[in-house]
Amino acid sequence: MDKNKKENTLHIIKIGGNVIDNSENLHNFLKDFTELDGYKILVHGGGKVATQLSETLGIEAKMVDGRRITDIETLRIVTMVYGGLINKNIVAQLQRLGNNAIGLTGADGNFIRTKKRPIKTIDYGFVGDIEENSINPENIKKLMDAGFTPVFCALTHDGEGQLLNTNADTIASALAVSLASLYETTLIYCFEKKGVLKDINDEESLIKEIAPISYEELKQQQIIHSGMLPKLDNAFTAINCGVKSVIIGHAADLGKLKQNSSFGTRLSKNA
Amino acid sequence: MDKNKKENTLHIIKIGGNVIDNSENLHNFLKDFTELDGYKILVHGGGKVATQLSETLGIEAKMVDGRRITDIETLRIVTMVYGGLINKNIVAQLQRLGNNAIGLTGADGNFIRTKKRPIKTIDYGFVGDIEENSINPENIKKLMDAGFTPVFCALTHDGEGQLLNTNADTIASALAVSLASLYETTLIYCFEKKGVLKDINDEESLIKEIAPISYEELKQQQIIHSGMLPKLDNAFTAINCGVKSVIIGHAADLGKLKQNSSFGTRLSKNA
Repeated sequence: MDKNKKENTLHIIKIGGNVIDNSENLHNFLKDFTELDGYKILVHGGGKVATQLSETLGIEAKMVDGRRITDIETLRIVTMVYGGLINKNIVAQLQRLGNNAIGLTGADGNFIRTKKRPIKTIDYGFVGDIEENSINPENIKKLMDAGFTPVFCALTHDGEGQLLNTNADTIASALAVSLASLYETTLIYCFEKKGVLKDINDEESLIKEIAPISYEELKQQQIIHSGMLPKLDNAFTAINCGVKSVIIGHAADLGKLKQNSSFGTRLSKNA
Repeated sequence: MDKNKKENTLHIIKIGGNVIDNSENLHNFLKDFTELDGYKILVHGGGKVATQLSETLGIEAKMVDGRRITDIETLRIVTMVYGGLINKNIVAQLQRLGNNAIGLTGADGNFIRTKKRPIKTIDYGFVGDIEENSINPENIKKLMDAGFTPVFCALTHDGEGQLLNTNADTIASALAVSLASLYETTLIYCFEKKGVLKDINDEESLIKEIAPISYEELKQQQIIHSGMLPKLDNAFTAINCGVKSVIIGHAADLGKLKQNSSFGTRLSKNA
């Protein structure tokens, strides 16, 4: 690990449907994203368009135990919507803003190679699970060194010609962990709240910083509710694997980062 | 123009629906493409899938004077099908074959910036026309120098955030002309015939080479029929702009190029 290399900062930012589905929110977010200094990678999820297209085409969403199944028809839809419609429109907008974006799936450049989830009790279909060596950080570095900003959608491949559906949150954290050896990496999850809240109904109750010790306390006091637990567990896993910090916050607040102002909930080893 | 740079060979190959719509043809073609030496770029058109999806969604193809109009609904479809479904499946297959492909529209990397066709008598809708400075050869070179194989679909952008539909043949020839200053460039159009035929009903009547002089003779003798004229005119324009040669032939014959055997009809200044 060359110390000089780590002087480069990298922000990996994940956005979901709440940003993608609203053209004004998306526009503002992409402007703030473009103005961030240093290297950056955007990861986006799906939004309502895939669901709407499936409904129009009469393809029923298959759910087992509340979890979505990616059958071959659904894979076709998400390849069209995530990899085509959403990804390429985001790229065109970033280019308008002067950001030299390239839209990608994990198949492109062999950047993210996953394994089709094995069938145990449930067959999840064409879903790809990220493994230890799934991501090729050197290949991604080559692309960024050439001056391009990667924009990843929630698709990967198995290296055998098969595209697979992979959770965008998982892609973002796996990219951060993998690239942390080359860059001083911050992972940012944008969602529909200001960050981790003491009281979920009070946006003013934002917890600004969480360190591993205070995280344990917050869990014991049951201030962090069940839905937030896996998100934060993943975040601390990323931090333990070398990611400098993880920010969980609202997309509309990203601009504050540029102004060196606080934004969302920052998780780090020594917060 | 550094002479050393031109020692690198580049093949730009365009395929259409006759290859894309048949998985066996596509597989064989991609294998031959991967085995070609030197730098290479793939450009693909649409195929039947876009038409089928439009029909399923009840979107009528709008034609004026036999020419297709790209309205906003059609643009959405082609962005999904060309930029997502077809492009990313080709990339996944190329990766399986060990070819480090990256799937692109002209918006990605700002590689192809076009101008929305002005409305004169007909409004063609969201169609982008390539102009003199539309292509950024240095940016494409950076991507290839980093070890990636560009795979372009028939989409471009206007630099103002708008994706546009652009003819794949035109993209291929514009790429060839633009990159001819950096590489010894061969442009290959794959179609459903063995090449330019003396008798359109006789596949054995292939004309193996055409130089500008013999082209004039073939036109005078009316051996080259009307449908072939614009293709060949474009090809000779490319050659006059520095492209070394243009091959028009059948996708199934691409493998012959690797074996240094003749393939299709070769057009060049001194054929």
